Amino acid sequence: MEQTAILLLHCPDKQGIITEITKFITDNKGNIVYLDQYVDKVDGMFFMRIEWELKEFLIPNDKISEYITTLYGQRYELHFNLYFNSVKPRMALFVSKMSHCLYDLLARYKAGELNIDIPCIVSNHEDLRYVAEQFGIPYYVWSIKKDWSNKAEVEAAEMELLRKERVTFIVLARYMQIISEEMIKSFPNRIINIHHSFLPAFIGAKPYHQAYERGVKIIGATSHYVTTELDAGPIIEQDVVRITHKDTPESLVLKGKDLEKIVLSRAVKKHVERKILTYKNKTIIFS
Amino acid sequence: MEQTAILLLHCPDKQGIITEITKFITDNKGNIVYLDQYVDKVDGMFFMRIEWELKEFLIPNDKISEYITTLYGQRYELHFNLYFNSVKPRMALFVSKMSHCLYDLLARYKAGELNIDIPCIVSNHEDLRYVAEQFGIPYYVWSIKKDWSNKAEVEAAEMELLRKERVTFIVLARYMQIISEEMIKSFPNRIINIHHSFLPAFIGAKPYHQAYERGVKIIGATSHYVTTELDAGPIIEQDVVRITHKDTPESLVLKGKDLEKIVLSRAVKKHVERKILTYKNKTIIFS
Amino acid sequence: MEQTAILLLHCPDKQGIITEITKFITDNKGNIVYLDQYVDKVDGMFFMRIEWELKEFLIPNDKISEYITTLYGQRYELHFNLYFNSVKPRMALFVSKMSHCLYDLLARYKAGELNIDIPCIVSNHEDLRYVAEQFGIPYYVWSIKKDWSNKAEVEAAEMELLRKERVTFIVLARYMQIISEEMIKSFPNRIINIHHSFLPAFIGAKPYHQAYERGVKIIGATSHYVTTELDAGPIIEQDVVRITHKDTPESLVLKGKDLEKIVLSRAVKKHVERKILTYKNKTIIFS
Amino acid sequence: MEQTAILLLHCPDKQGIITEITKFITDNKGNIVYLDQYVDKVDGMFFMRIEWELKEFLIPNDKISEYITTLYGQRYELHFNLYFNSVKPRMALFVSKMSHCLYDLLARYKAGELNIDIPCIVSNHEDLRYVAEQFGIPYYVWSIKKDWSNKAEVEAAEMELLRKERVTFIVLARYMQIISEEMIKSFPNRIINIHHSFLPAFIGAKPYHQAYERGVKIIGATSHYVTTELDAGPIIEQDVVRITHKDTPESLVLKGKDLEKIVLSRAVKKHVERKILTYKNKTIIFS
Repeated sequence: MEQTAILLLHCPDKQGIITEITKFITDNKGNIVYLDQYVDKVDGMFFMRIEWELKEFLIPNDKISEYITTLYGQRYELHFNLYFNSVKPRMALFVSKMSHCLYDLLARYKAGELNIDIPCIVSNHEDLRYVAEQFGIPYYVWSIKKDWSNKAEVEAAEMELLRKERVTFIVLARYMQIISEEMIKSFPNRIINIHHSFLPAFIGAKPYHQAYERGVKIIGATSHYVTTELDAGPIIEQDVVRITHKDTPESLVLKGKDLEKIVLSRAVKKHVERKILTYKNKTIIFS
Repeated sequence: MEQTAILLLHCPDKQGIITEITKFITDNKGNIVYLDQYVDKVDGMFFMRIEWELKEFLIPNDKISEYITTLYGQRYELHFNLYFNSVKPRMALFVSKMSHCLYDLLARYKAGELNIDIPCIVSNHEDLRYVAEQFGIPYYVWSIKKDWSNKAEVEAAEMELLRKERVTFIVLARYMQIISEEMIKSFPNRIINIHHSFLPAFIGAKPYHQAYERGVKIIGATSHYVTTELDAGPIIEQDVVRITHKDTPESLVLKGKDLEKIVLSRAVKKHVERKILTYKNKTIIFS
Repeated sequence: MEQTAILLLHCPDKQGIITEITKFITDNKGNIVYLDQYVDKVDGMFFMRIEWELKEFLIPNDKISEYITTLYGQRYELHFNLYFNSVKPRMALFVSKMSHCLYDLLARYKAGELNIDIPCIVSNHEDLRYVAEQFGIPYYVWSIKKDWSNKAEVEAAEMELLRKERVTFIVLARYMQIISEEMIKSFPNRIINIHHSFLPAFIGAKPYHQAYERGVKIIGATSHYVTTELDAGPIIEQDVVRITHKDTPESLVLKGKDLEKIVLSRAVKKHVERKILTYKNKTIIFS
Repeated sequence: MEQTAILLLHCPDKQGIITEITKFITDNKGNIVYLDQYVDKVDGMFFMRIEWELKEFLIPNDKISEYITTLYGQRYELHFNLYFNSVKPRMALFVSKMSHCLYDLLARYKAGELNIDIPCIVSNHEDLRYVAEQFGIPYYVWSIKKDWSNKAEVEAAEMELLRKERVTFIVLARYMQIISEEMIKSFPNRIINIHHSFLPAFIGAKPYHQAYERGVKIIGATSHYVTTELDAGPIIEQDVVRITHKDTPESLVLKGKDLEKIVLSRAVKKHVERKILTYKNKTIIFS
């Protein structure tokens, strides 16, 4: 695999920004292999994802950020992130009792669909240890008490693990616990959750039962970045499936599971490929 | 077209009900051409739609209801409605300024897709009179003042028209006014609305703008019977379309219009064909 | 779980069939828990699925078939199959090199979504042995030579295994080999295949490449029963996903894999629940 | 509405092309309001759509083409088309007996959704004259004999009309006749057809009957540019709807009509907005 750099940026929309950035890369002998941009006309903002091969690039990897900041940072009020495809994202999986999202992600990982490392799986229950063992991934259990009396302690231990394992993003694969504000702030736009409804419909607990009660004809699933407001973070991906009056809460759960795992996996894939930009609690998803 | 009777019924689920009803029809020389039933196991309720040809049926049309009530009413705690396909539903259309749902329904009507009469179109604006005139349907305008000071008066006039024209159901084809409780109660489960969101997400005004603000990846439309609680009546039909970050509120409106007209027309068709049963604020839709 | 009998039947449509069959079950103290029927008016055929609890049923399990044949067989020209929910279907999985459908089925099996036994996984390659081992299921490899010189021999060995393991149906989970006529005839409507296109578009090899070449805007997957004509058996389930000009053959393969596994699993579930009737190379799928 | 120029181009992919074109426009005081590009890596081709405001643009409208040809034509092996949003496309509608696509397009036209003129509607039957009259658009009928003995003559008359009315593109809104090679060549990638199946499945006549016979679980509709090979031109848009074994050929036709009109209208809209590039019998659809 050819080594590449990936630049995700946004700034106020000004003429010339594409020209300058592409010229900067080309002049320094970078071969551009991907360029996609988007202008939000409502807010007057410019967003771009650009990727180039590093083989003959004249600027060393550890200087690229500095150059971009110096040359364009102030002039264009630029916000950017720089990634290298040679640095694999390290994903921690948080699970509870249901295995469908976990299996789906691990099966893709094993089939080489996701360019990541998975150093650990974290849970508040022993139930899914056998899955972790099937795939040879360390499984950590910290039980959170119903009265949350040990929640701070548990999260401290989890944070310690995440640091030790140099985890770069977290996936809540039907982890049925609230994440504390502190952990969320340590992983801004780097905790991906799957909510089992078509948000913003049916926020909170038991969305399939809510959907059953309301008598909707379509149910959905939503993958989003976790923010401190419950189920209100930037939406990455959604999908739906048609239901009928014949569906029970139980059959909704089964149909929903198929949605959840596909929607979550699509979101994880986009995140890992550095194709998501977040702005004003919304996502720009590059193709 | 062969003349038929259509019986829509529900009752507590007891063994024997299908056997008895089908035997009643067959013994009296009715030829059953449609039968669909559904058991709600959560509530223990039985629902059925049965349709039979009347050509050789021994019981006269105006006595069928009486017979069913006498023979099965009390014994099965039966609720039922009886329709004849020879009696066309009479639909009043309520519109405001947007033509897409109106054109869609009138084009189907003209093409013979809907077995109905349309005696009148009602609006609070003159804007769509030209459409009514294109199709030769009387168009009535009553302007409702912003302070609603004449609302009671307008609704009284509308009710008078609906009575005079023997209207059996109302379709709000993007009629942007609240219907009064009195009118709703005069047409229970017989006012069909199209809401331009995937309910229960984005209840109330400007749902496309709400969807844009929230950054959803899919938008929807919902057709439902109108009840006194805003956008909370039994849902008949929903559909969705995928959107991206590139969509503006304006492009959402355009995409949504295509959903709205299809979803509303499907709901009207199901209603006209007597394929909808309403129970506990939900619909059973027979196929 | 309550023990039940499931009767799947079809016959020429005659008045009285529902009445008689439901009366037969009720009179013999069977409690009907499911009834769905369908009349094909084009062909004048009647189809029904009926399920009842056996606890107090007066006819012993091994006599039910005989009674139905005697009482209704000739009179109604009845074709029927009788199943008991206490008898688990035994599924053999045939795989090749791709793991996505295999993982998806095994994860569901492990989560208790499928009421089956899986006595064996068969392949022409060693590649997926590790998956079988993760789940503790025997894995058999028979390599078929490119010139098919050992094909008869391999199939004989496979048939021997299937007999020994009392396999009742076969799932081709992206098994890239042609099944011989003999094996197909031994498992009529009991071999389920997943074809990676929206049949009948793109029959045969490399459908995603065919789709790319044709420039379609939507791709699909199709699960069907295997018949002796390639990709032409009764379709059980299909689904689709939208693509764009930006998709390459490789990205189509990835998007398609998500479709394939969901579509195949839905088909297997319907088959296992005895909800599929096959007639004239088409399926009736009960809900 | 601000006046703009729209440039649709493709050429072999070379570094610098975006930079040069955007610089050319910006240097000449054009304000870029839209830019989207795409690189086909399989073929090594670059595609771009760029739109800019003309208010202060230094090059006169009738010279822009010449400048682009001179400056970039040979150097980049450029193929391009230049449009001005002030020049409305002139659409001829060809219809037969079914009104749904015709009504849908005319309703949008009337609602201001399509920035076009419609100088004429052409048919081989009188059936839809009333629709044309509702909208005040001239309606021309030329009956083609079953033995095609007058086909050349009819097409000559049609071509004469198209020339006289300066028609720039043709929409076959369920026009059930084969278009001659000569007419197709006069309107390359400017005749849009709606085929009532999910192409390439069910090419040719009576696709809904073919779909019914095959027992598919989803039907579709396809809008494409007409080429000399039947139903094989570049696909612009497709969509699908789920069906069941309960659907008859007649209900498929009804469900399909909803698809057809939406799919055709989406294609027409993209064409009118100059968002379609055709290359190698496929379309690039800009967003």
